[in-house]
Amino acid sequence: MNPKLQWLRNKMVSLDLQGLIISNPISMKYLTGISAEGILLLTRKENIYITDARYIEYVHSILTLYDEIIVYDINDVSKDDYENFFMFCENVGFEENYVTYAKYKEMIRKYKINNFVETEYIIEKQRMIKDEKEINNIKKACEITDDCFSYILTYIKPGMTELQIAKEIEEYYKERTEGLSFDTIVASGENTSMPHAVPTDRKIKKKDIITIDMGCKINGYCSDMTRTFFVGEIPEEIKKVYDLVLKNQMQTSDAFKDGVSTRLLSKMVENDFHLNGYDLVHSIGHGVGMEIHEAPYIGGKTDTNLKENMIVTNEPGIYIPGKFGVRIEDTVQITKFGSINLTKSEKNYIII
Amino acid sequence: MNPKLQWLRNKMVSLDLQGLIISNPISMKYLTGISAEGILLLTRKENIYITDARYIEYVHSILTLYDEIIVYDINDVSKDDYENFFMFCENVGFEENYVTYAKYKEMIRKYKINNFVETEYIIEKQRMIKDEKEINNIKKACEITDDCFSYILTYIKPGMTELQIAKEIEEYYKERTEGLSFDTIVASGENTSMPHAVPTDRKIKKKDIITIDMGCKINGYCSDMTRTFFVGEIPEEIKKVYDLVLKNQMQTSDAFKDGVSTRLLSKMVENDFHLNGYDLVHSIGHGVGMEIHEAPYIGGKTDTNLKENMIVTNEPGIYIPGKFGVRIEDTVQITKFGSINLTKSEKNYIII
Repeated sequence: MNPKLQWLRNKMVSLDLQGLIISNPISMKYLTGISAEGILLLTRKENIYITDARYIEYVHSILTLYDEIIVYDINDVSKDDYENFFMFCENVGFEENYVTYAKYKEMIRKYKINNFVETEYIIEKQRMIKDEKEINNIKKACEITDDCFSYILTYIKPGMTELQIAKEIEEYYKERTEGLSFDTIVASGENTSMPHAVPTDRKIKKKDIITIDMGCKINGYCSDMTRTFFVGEIPEEIKKVYDLVLKNQMQTSDAFKDGVSTRLLSKMVENDFHLNGYDLVHSIGHGVGMEIHEAPYIGGKTDTNLKENMIVTNEPGIYIPGKFGVRIEDTVQITKFGSINLTKSEKNYIII
Repeated sequence: MNPKLQWLRNKMVSLDLQGLIISNPISMKYLTGISAEGILLLTRKENIYITDARYIEYVHSILTLYDEIIVYDINDVSKDDYENFFMFCENVGFEENYVTYAKYKEMIRKYKINNFVETEYIIEKQRMIKDEKEINNIKKACEITDDCFSYILTYIKPGMTELQIAKEIEEYYKERTEGLSFDTIVASGENTSMPHAVPTDRKIKKKDIITIDMGCKINGYCSDMTRTFFVGEIPEEIKKVYDLVLKNQMQTSDAFKDGVSTRLLSKMVENDFHLNGYDLVHSIGHGVGMEIHEAPYIGGKTDTNLKENMIVTNEPGIYIPGKFGVRIEDTVQITKFGSINLTKSEKNYIII
């Protein structure tokens, strides 16, 4: 059996879970390599993947005997088959954070499940810790992101629009990677005050502040980096905010390591912002992997202890509505003794 | 109040629904124009949109007084506020096909809802019928798709890879539209036997069969078209299948009109395929709008009566595993008296 599926089987034993239904396509891709419409059933003895005629050939091209997954065409699965899959299971787990309420009800009916239990992000928690192959993919995506940022600094000229710059970044990524890991943010001037600004027709002007939040995908794994920089000069009122954000970004980077509480890190930044008269309006980081945003989330609302080989972002930001905003973000690997920045672009004042 | 929200308010009255929670981002965008993370609450007297600090500025830039929507920052909403929103509602509807089981449980707790009722695709059903503006957007997307297909026929040469052709289509769309409405399918030779083939490094050869399934977006609305064509000549065994698919595509097109049962249409095609020794392995069409696949679905599993100003695809296909496949697809507008093809590219044998 492939190691990720074997891990899950062991986890089921330790949780005393007799059956499991995997429906989230990302869980499926992670566990089996399959990107298709279908459902994975872990019954007492078998791993079963049900899909439809559109994907049968493709699925067989992905799986090997070693995966130990039996593939069914949905048209060959009878009402009785569905009822038999989990017949002797005292409980069956499902992904309550992915399955809709309507599907939940349908599954109970279809599989005749008596005790359908929540599995509390069982796969997402496994995905937080990356293996060597996953880390190498993210590293590669981060390297290309650094290269793209270096290039884009030489490309940007006053008179260009935010949209034009975003398009150039996309082109750069398209030629070298699987494409964007999320829609690039290029915000300039007062638009930087919106953390999730969408690129507009606004033209870059002299003395502008520019924020670019960008990332790409390599073999299905994401990178994520933000830099805030300046055209010609840095206005004094912005410099103060930039220094405060950078100081907190560096302090967080220094504090990142195996065992540290994510809530504590967030509180540290929040306190320092408050002391200086600013609010922390978004979380200071999130896991990065097959998804651009995944567990763990580094904010005040949840708490996780960082673990070796988690990959997370470090991205404090301050936003002055209608005026400007500053965010500085790296993708970072957690180790036993500290953290390693996987994105390495300059963080001191960048003036173009 | 904007007409789409007013429509929904009226629908609530007719369904005797006293409150409604809208969580699906597509429903939100459709009803309000907002693309952000947030939730829309239709209480007895008010329309309330709750979002977070990242989106507040953006949301205010989209809404006008005319929308009659009160915007809250999630950080300003107290436990009591949540409990008060639906306090005097005997029932509150939710989108059971979007809301996860975990969210469902959380909402009941947070809003103290006693009678949380399923709304059975209330918004999706409204979205099936397009207004003039929506139809014009789809028409425009279809026109550009026809233009792109004409161009790509002149572009393709033996020796090019499927990936290279897919990339050229994407570039074409990027320069003229909001981009792809779905990942372009370019399949050649035996790859055409997979209905959902992903473009590969396979090079186009003389005597190849090629299937391209493509579409773009204009103002958030999609187009969808497939053509199967040939390099140099058409092998006899494929010609027979092509003729059968085309005959059924044209017959369906002739049968499309207000009042017709979608299941009946699908059965018609399935029967004719069976008579000729082939299977119908996927549905013969689906609605097209803000999503590339949306209601109504034209297949054997569900039944809907077509209605004026629905926009659907007409896409029968036959696939011979390991050998080849043929699919021909148009985006079509349903009218009272028949249907109008919005994609108009040649459907008789195309040989390049």
